[in-house]
Amino acid sequence: MSASPFPASLPFGTLVACLRLARAEQVGPRQWHRLIALYKTPEAALEALSNGRNGPSGRSGKTLVPAPEAAILREIEATLAMGGQFLTLLDAGYPAPLRHVPDAPIVLSALGDTTCLHKAGIGIVGARNASAAGLRLAESLSTELVEAGVVVVSGLARGIDTAAHRGALHRQGLTIAAIAGGLDRPYPPENAALQKRIAEQGAVITEAPLGTAPMGRHFPRRNRLIAGLALGCVVVEAAPHSGTLITARMASEYGRELFAVPGSPLDPRCRGSNNLIRNGAVLTESAADILPHIDSLRAGMPPVWQDTLPLSAPRPNPAPRAPSPPDA
Amino acid sequence: MSASPFPASLPFGTLVACLRLARAEQVGPRQWHRLIALYKTPEAALEALSNGRNGPSGRSGKTLVPAPEAAILREIEATLAMGGQFLTLLDAGYPAPLRHVPDAPIVLSALGDTTCLHKAGIGIVGARNASAAGLRLAESLSTELVEAGVVVVSGLARGIDTAAHRGALHRQGLTIAAIAGGLDRPYPPENAALQKRIAEQGAVITEAPLGTAPMGRHFPRRNRLIAGLALGCVVVEAAPHSGTLITARMASEYGRELFAVPGSPLDPRCRGSNNLIRNGAVLTESAADILPHIDSLRAGMPPVWQDTLPLSAPRPNPAPRAPSPPDA
Repeated sequence: MSASPFPASLPFGTLVACLRLARAEQVGPRQWHRLIALYKTPEAALEALSNGRNGPSGRSGKTLVPAPEAAILREIEATLAMGGQFLTLLDAGYPAPLRHVPDAPIVLSALGDTTCLHKAGIGIVGARNASAAGLRLAESLSTELVEAGVVVVSGLARGIDTAAHRGALHRQGLTIAAIAGGLDRPYPPENAALQKRIAEQGAVITEAPLGTAPMGRHFPRRNRLIAGLALGCVVVEAAPHSGTLITARMASEYGRELFAVPGSPLDPRCRGSNNLIRNGAVLTESAADILPHIDSLRAGMPPVWQDTLPLSAPRPNPAPRAPSPPDA
Repeated sequence: MSASPFPASLPFGTLVACLRLARAEQVGPRQWHRLIALYKTPEAALEALSNGRNGPSGRSGKTLVPAPEAAILREIEATLAMGGQFLTLLDAGYPAPLRHVPDAPIVLSALGDTTCLHKAGIGIVGARNASAAGLRLAESLSTELVEAGVVVVSGLARGIDTAAHRGALHRQGLTIAAIAGGLDRPYPPENAALQKRIAEQGAVITEAPLGTAPMGRHFPRRNRLIAGLALGCVVVEAAPHSGTLITARMASEYGRELFAVPGSPLDPRCRGSNNLIRNGAVLTESAADILPHIDSLRAGMPPVWQDTLPLSAPRPNPAPRAPSPPDA
């Protein structure tokens, strides 16, 4: 791996300062970069703010108020207590593919083995109310991808997302769930067990602090995590104007490859994916349509990414089950 | 229309000579062109052959034996008696798009109004064992095309072909059936009534003489009529290695546009059509995907074709049916 300009782990005080800034209402990724450019460290930015300086011109004009230290300490304690960790833009462990996205989140909370965030990943996204055929496809695509050493990234939602995570878990593959709420708020609730398994076998990440109930406005942000983490996204079923298409558009804006599974024009859930193909997405029937692109996608990334995006070691297929003995 | 180098109708003797050559076992389009290049007229070619000259080097080395005059006279009489006509490569009425195909048939037998062979046509082809969704799509595509003034060309087969012809007839649109056997041998037999309706409202054409039962080897020749008559072909459902894909390949070789309707990768009937899209066919969900190409397809044809390929006059939609009166 290339030498990283970022430390392997942040001093505790720096993490606290990061979080106090990141959790301030007025600080988005843009404001964060302005503050760091101006004050060099989050501690210095915080110090300046507490001395009454409002940082670089906040467009809102509102006073920039850092999150209270006590609340941040509680968040850190509770996150660590549940086995979680933080990855800030200042960490070497921050996912490489996401770092250079224009609106990369300042801080991620994560469960599981975060090294998989650095491996070559493909997003699988699609309709929550997917067809049975769509679910089967998402699941088998995912299985084929993890068998080839690719990490499957999705959003833990009902339908295609769930099928994608399951398909990866079948083969002990690596899968990442990007979620909209806090790590302690799996959504939908029936996927709590699935999130737990993903955390054991891959990783769960979110931008939201612990305790955040996922709300509508959080989902586009979650979608951007999927688009930003993956080298490309496969759209399995997507109606026009669906959230899935937002993820696809983001992936495209981030320069990632789009893959789409075709479907009958009579099924409205396929209109969005068919339209993506019409507009240049790679027509995808199986992982064989995706895998040949992985190398060139990695090669097209900034050099630091190429080193940090190995394929995950493919797992050997489990031995085929012995046939049941005939009744004696 | 540009001045044609071909007469509007052939002298009877020329037609007989044409057919005697065309129906000779050793004379295909290539041999025909050699004979005409050498002897200028079919009568002269026939005369030379009856004088023991075997024409230009027939590769087979077999003696070229013209069909017996009596048999040809019977074929002509019977064809005319059932309302049919002949179109030879020497006729001005020979379909312009087909004329410049490398292996254009020497003679076509036709029922119906052959002027529709000169109008802008699109082929609709696909699986005989099509899905219900595929049939619905073929029918609605066809209806939309004829409503826009496009002639729908297909092959009278079960499944997609039947749906395509029906979709055109619904709107009193023009449709052409290219068949594999003689005009008196509709195939499959249950489509005899459909062939009759097509002959009344459009045209039925074949390369085979009257009385020919359609056999396997005739179908690729029939497929080439569809590919050659149309400006482009839409593939609705096609399994790998199907006859439909042969038509598609021919259309492509003839420089025509390929359109394909996407479908679920889980349906083997869609693999062929999805693969066409992967290889550059226009993804087609409705006629709106085809119609914008018609003008450029006509413009891309040799100049003589551009004049001879007007859109057929769109028919006004039938007035919506009055709702049934409520029970009094």
